[in-house]
Amino acid sequence: MEYHRQLGLSPETFETVLDHVERASYEGTEYRHVPDYRRGVERGTVLFDGAVVRGFPKVPRTLVLGAGVPQQFDGPVAVEEKLNGYNTRIARIDGDVLAFSRSGLVCPYTTWFVERRLDLDPLFDDHPDTAVCGEMIGSENPYTPHDYSGVDSLAFRAFDWRDRQSGEPLDVRGRRERYGEYGVPQVRLFGVYDPDDAADELREIIDQLDADDREGIVMKSLDGVTQLKYTTSAANRGDLAYAFSLPFDYGQAFMFRRLIREAFQSIEWNESPEQAHKRAHAVGEAIVLSMTETIERVADGEAVGERHTVRGDPAAIDDLLDHLDAQGLTIDVQADDRVERERDGAERVVTFCKRVQSTNDTIRGYLDGQIVRE
Amino acid sequence: MEYHRQLGLSPETFETVLDHVERASYEGTEYRHVPDYRRGVERGTVLFDGAVVRGFPKVPRTLVLGAGVPQQFDGPVAVEEKLNGYNTRIARIDGDVLAFSRSGLVCPYTTWFVERRLDLDPLFDDHPDTAVCGEMIGSENPYTPHDYSGVDSLAFRAFDWRDRQSGEPLDVRGRRERYGEYGVPQVRLFGVYDPDDAADELREIIDQLDADDREGIVMKSLDGVTQLKYTTSAANRGDLAYAFSLPFDYGQAFMFRRLIREAFQSIEWNESPEQAHKRAHAVGEAIVLSMTETIERVADGEAVGERHTVRGDPAAIDDLLDHLDAQGLTIDVQADDRVERERDGAERVVTFCKRVQSTNDTIRGYLDGQIVRE
Repeated sequence: MEYHRQLGLSPETFETVLDHVERASYEGTEYRHVPDYRRGVERGTVLFDGAVVRGFPKVPRTLVLGAGVPQQFDGPVAVEEKLNGYNTRIARIDGDVLAFSRSGLVCPYTTWFVERRLDLDPLFDDHPDTAVCGEMIGSENPYTPHDYSGVDSLAFRAFDWRDRQSGEPLDVRGRRERYGEYGVPQVRLFGVYDPDDAADELREIIDQLDADDREGIVMKSLDGVTQLKYTTSAANRGDLAYAFSLPFDYGQAFMFRRLIREAFQSIEWNESPEQAHKRAHAVGEAIVLSMTETIERVADGEAVGERHTVRGDPAAIDDLLDHLDAQGLTIDVQADDRVERERDGAERVVTFCKRVQSTNDTIRGYLDGQIVRE
Repeated sequence: MEYHRQLGLSPETFETVLDHVERASYEGTEYRHVPDYRRGVERGTVLFDGAVVRGFPKVPRTLVLGAGVPQQFDGPVAVEEKLNGYNTRIARIDGDVLAFSRSGLVCPYTTWFVERRLDLDPLFDDHPDTAVCGEMIGSENPYTPHDYSGVDSLAFRAFDWRDRQSGEPLDVRGRRERYGEYGVPQVRLFGVYDPDDAADELREIIDQLDADDREGIVMKSLDGVTQLKYTTSAANRGDLAYAFSLPFDYGQAFMFRRLIREAFQSIEWNESPEQAHKRAHAVGEAIVLSMTETIERVADGEAVGERHTVRGDPAAIDDLLDHLDAQGLTIDVQADDRVERERDGAERVVTFCKRVQSTNDTIRGYLDGQIVRE
């Protein structure tokens, strides 16, 4: 079946989509993907070997739970945990299980992990047209590392089940049941709530997640169609600290949005002056102390960048480094070890740094007295 | 003399400049000005009634005094105070003393103030081609109000003396002497320093200005040509608090630049962890508490905006309000009083608000549960 029919697009609209696809290849197979948000087709949509994997839809956010939840939902709301990792869609195409990134690239490392650590064949045998959607989490990952207690290195948590081609989701209860049957680990379900009446319970969930340094929640209508997200202050601050540790490489809009969220949360939580000051101080620390730490490192002659550790099969790690290289990233390998593990045999553990040119060069320049014309 | 000759431009280059001028009028005289930074001619350059008033040059900034000062200067550096108000150039054209804004508009209110409060005719009689350059400061002004002890409502402080047409500055000592002779108030001169040796003294000046909630310094080569500025943390925080009080109307780059300055200052001051935390907390308060205050006001149904008070001749204030209106600003007059003053007779005191649509609308929307697709 032609791609445009699979996507439900006219040949003409499909032509305009083709103007914005990028080409990539995985193990000798050339494929195309839509790296940016576009009219007519979701970001991350993949055209692979005659098959379509629909991009994962953008999940809108509310800044005020008490107003946003009743605004978005007119029936019961399932509340699941939003994890801080990287979004992955897994599909089986022509017999191969492949893991796609948010923007639609096959990630060889995630693909290796999924093949090795999840047995999805029974699921795909029964439901060949499924995209298994979820978050890859843990401290050892090449994109968004974050410590989760109980997660050793890297783990997968399913949060959606969609038709690969149409992008239609399964309803929440059906999805959780099926993943349970196939033994696929899932994100936590906190409960199902009445949208007009959930504010207090959501607040309690968020408070607990915040105290545990976890990211937030995704709320869903029971049919899985309507989604809404909300994040903890801990997540906002973590993002701010990270962005301001590489201040000239992160978008200013990224930083600004997180500051705005803090202010709205302070208002909705109806904070006392003491609580609001405490929040303000934590935000200030995330901003200023992250920057000063980076400036000090550059002043000391160190190169700053995004540091990651990955662990796994030696060949899979080679493929990952090639994959990052093919995306134009400059990777400095800082450690490359072989570790014997009882369970898995020999593993390779590589720590590398994605070089960020702008933060290094700009800070160096300012430290050397370069002037600013603003 | 033709404009292009006065500007030292070829007729062809002048043609390209003309593509970017804007037209305005003052008391029936149509004039042109260059509102943005352009190749070939300074922002704020004015073509008025056959005369040229050259735009005031952009003053570059250093983020690190110890490195930037020796980098920029190879001889003695005069250090003057940078005041927090609005930049004004005053010129006499065809007998009329006119005050121009940074972008090259005649401000009728500033012009009235200058006519009424400064007697510049002896200066212009002797030096007809001069642009008197300085800062308008004080709590009662329509652009950048800031309290200065000893400044009652509005005041002028000269900081430069330039040839109106060429933009050539007078040397620092000659300039200070001449303004002294003509009785024109000037910015403070802190002293003249060796650039390789000034770091400690500059630090002391900045510390004192910071403690007094004042803005900073401008350093100048003695010939007045090379300029470099540096600001206090108090000024950065004041700007941040103001910008974040109208978060959806201020540029994110404006905010970001001020955060960067704080980090570099913390590093250059070699702060202890306690001092760095204190700075971070103050920055966090400037950001978060300004936003929460604004959100609360919008939640309470108030309209937020830039609030100003001006005081003066009733007709001059009418002209000012018309002038702001002609620039497309929406002005809500909140108080309009008549005050008898012993010295000056009747004065009109008007408090008005420049409406900022985006902050009001966006905050209202989020409070009502509008979702964010980011």
